[in-house]
Amino acid sequence: MVGRMPRINTHYQKLRAGYLFPEIGKRVRAFAAAHPDARIIPLGIGDVVLPLPVPIVDALKAGAEEMGKRETFRGYGPEQGYDFLREAIAASYREQGAQVALDDIFVSDGSKCDTANIQEIFALDNVIALTDPVYPVYVDTNVMAGRTGEADDSGRYGKLVYLPTTAENGFEPTLPAGHVDIIYLCSPNNPTGAVMSRAALERWVAYARKEAAVILFDAAYEAFIREPGLVHSIFQIPGSRDVAIEFRSLSKSAGFTGTRCAFTVIPKELCGRDAGGGPVSLHSLWNRRHTTKFNGTSYPVQKAAAAAFGPEGRRAVQANIDYYMENARLIREGLSSAGYRVYGGQNAPYIWLRVPGGMTSWDFFDRLLAEANVVGTPGSGFGSCGEGYFRLSAFGWRENVEAAVERIRTNCRWEP
Amino acid sequence: MVGRMPRINTHYQKLRAGYLFPEIGKRVRAFAAAHPDARIIPLGIGDVVLPLPVPIVDALKAGAEEMGKRETFRGYGPEQGYDFLREAIAASYREQGAQVALDDIFVSDGSKCDTANIQEIFALDNVIALTDPVYPVYVDTNVMAGRTGEADDSGRYGKLVYLPTTAENGFEPTLPAGHVDIIYLCSPNNPTGAVMSRAALERWVAYARKEAAVILFDAAYEAFIREPGLVHSIFQIPGSRDVAIEFRSLSKSAGFTGTRCAFTVIPKELCGRDAGGGPVSLHSLWNRRHTTKFNGTSYPVQKAAAAAFGPEGRRAVQANIDYYMENARLIREGLSSAGYRVYGGQNAPYIWLRVPGGMTSWDFFDRLLAEANVVGTPGSGFGSCGEGYFRLSAFGWRENVEAAVERIRTNCRWEP
Repeated sequence: MVGRMPRINTHYQKLRAGYLFPEIGKRVRAFAAAHPDARIIPLGIGDVVLPLPVPIVDALKAGAEEMGKRETFRGYGPEQGYDFLREAIAASYREQGAQVALDDIFVSDGSKCDTANIQEIFALDNVIALTDPVYPVYVDTNVMAGRTGEADDSGRYGKLVYLPTTAENGFEPTLPAGHVDIIYLCSPNNPTGAVMSRAALERWVAYARKEAAVILFDAAYEAFIREPGLVHSIFQIPGSRDVAIEFRSLSKSAGFTGTRCAFTVIPKELCGRDAGGGPVSLHSLWNRRHTTKFNGTSYPVQKAAAAAFGPEGRRAVQANIDYYMENARLIREGLSSAGYRVYGGQNAPYIWLRVPGGMTSWDFFDRLLAEANVVGTPGSGFGSCGEGYFRLSAFGWRENVEAAVERIRTNCRWEP
Repeated sequence: MVGRMPRINTHYQKLRAGYLFPEIGKRVRAFAAAHPDARIIPLGIGDVVLPLPVPIVDALKAGAEEMGKRETFRGYGPEQGYDFLREAIAASYREQGAQVALDDIFVSDGSKCDTANIQEIFALDNVIALTDPVYPVYVDTNVMAGRTGEADDSGRYGKLVYLPTTAENGFEPTLPAGHVDIIYLCSPNNPTGAVMSRAALERWVAYARKEAAVILFDAAYEAFIREPGLVHSIFQIPGSRDVAIEFRSLSKSAGFTGTRCAFTVIPKELCGRDAGGGPVSLHSLWNRRHTTKFNGTSYPVQKAAAAAFGPEGRRAVQANIDYYMENARLIREGLSSAGYRVYGGQNAPYIWLRVPGGMTSWDFFDRLLAEANVVGTPGSGFGSCGEGYFRLSAFGWRENVEAAVERIRTNCRWEP
């Protein structure tokens, strides 16, 4: 029977390893089983800990109540999201000086899904550029779709164009030497915590306009930008509406990692081209994909998301962000004063540190877990240029962050 | 610039028309604008109207409350779903005599997504069989992935194997003459309302075992089966775990079309084969897809879903199903006594009728809208063998259903 079973999508077999976070989970579980008394502090996965703010919980409950009454029950909603939420999102873009219309916005249940699914509307032979290190989902989903070759020994896949972002170039990806069709950019960056300057984004938009490329701009962490004048949205850059798609999420800002709401902005003027070279609206392609393969985000969740954009919701969300960013400061300053070379953490909830003593990222992971009982994320899990780096997340309880910093300072003072 | 824009996935350009339901919406809006006084009764889209039952609303609110407290807040959950829900689902399978383990189950936010996304784990050159008429999502997502040729004049796509299900064969698809790799089956059927007999399912499982094919079994409507002895799950059929994947949803049963929860069952022993002919677990491929491209279903929604499996929730859900099935009986008997030839509606919430007077399905749609102000779904929207048929949904308020039946009986008595 085996010889005739349906053929699988063999591109999956090119994937180099399990998705990063399951591997971390496995090592942590093994360590915890062997050391049942260890109080392990998780600063690995970027998952929020603060509860949903009261105005958001109230909206979620009100949405639930509405679903229980004949007069206010809602069945299928518009796949693109309810206008009350899209209008709130559009208004928040207007405040940031970004040009986004209500019907450019597609509400979804997560940016992981959106950044993973967006590639489906593009042909398989486009040349894809992405930074190294990078959020693994961008890479893996293109591998699974067959848009890459095999992985080499460093874990890099054939056909992808990797743009190194390291301490040497100030974590700013440089423009590709030649033509690429699609570019993934993430700012504030996961994992490096770097924020792209306005000038850099202007260069990228100019590049994309010249090369007629599309920028897939992941702004999932824009709410963590503290410095005035930094760019929150690619759509603050003039000329970007012809060349960019933006992804945003309530996961980290409003604490929605378990509640699930995000959105994607595709300007209606943005086009790709078909086999004959004719322009085709990417907005209409995505709309076809979204309405055919998705049935809209849960209504009570959309109510809760809208509350996060209301005056009370925003204050509460900002307070949570301030809390995490104080964690980031503590980690950054604590480790810095202990002799670590530390990056990020000023406009992003991630601290990116240079692994000391010539260790690999996974060596450091294992030692940090063993000697400080702290879980972080090995930089090499984000790409070969992440080797020798390590990500700590600012999403944690203050007391845990303080204890983790103290333990690292005390137990892990390796020579740089 | 146009000449160098990123190339789109041109398979989208093979899609014949907008997705069926947006087209219906457009015609209804146009009619309503031209006839502002008409009281239009929607029996088109299969969308529930009864509010969520109290135990489910309470669970949703309790989940929201938990999200608002430090001690009970939940961030990222397991992508496959929380065990409390997977255990409830597994228990309900056990009661039905179906062999399903907790870790065969993947919780999601909708069966539309699941039935749309499952094809990604299969190679593009598998031969796909599906019934005609059929739920359009199965077809469209395979077109979008490039697994078909162009559409012909009847709307059928090259490379797909269509299995007619019409009154002539009692709406039972016959086994393909030759080999196919993947078969979509839906029972109770959308749109025909037919239920596959145990003997028929046994034949299909035997065929799949002999041909080493995979059956994608959509059981989204299993809760509407009234007749004892009919099969609810493909996993009630011995030998099915090697050859089948099952999709189920809370959308229609528990009224979750706006709340969003569904699940997919992939037995761990089910395999496809790779390029070398070696077996590859489809469960592990789907797990990779699910964890890379999806971040789990909203926690409060999973709580609500679990409540639908609890004793009180089940009673309330059953009462709602009974309500809709009484609608189905009224439509079925009302139209039958008016001379219509009527199918389905006994173990499914859909009534499938023969369009009278030699009209096309869309002609009948327009006349039913104009003369009875009733919205249904043209059978041809589900495939060329649906031409000459029409779907009415039992999801509506009793008074609307009664009024719709009365109007059709009075205003639409065409010769058969």
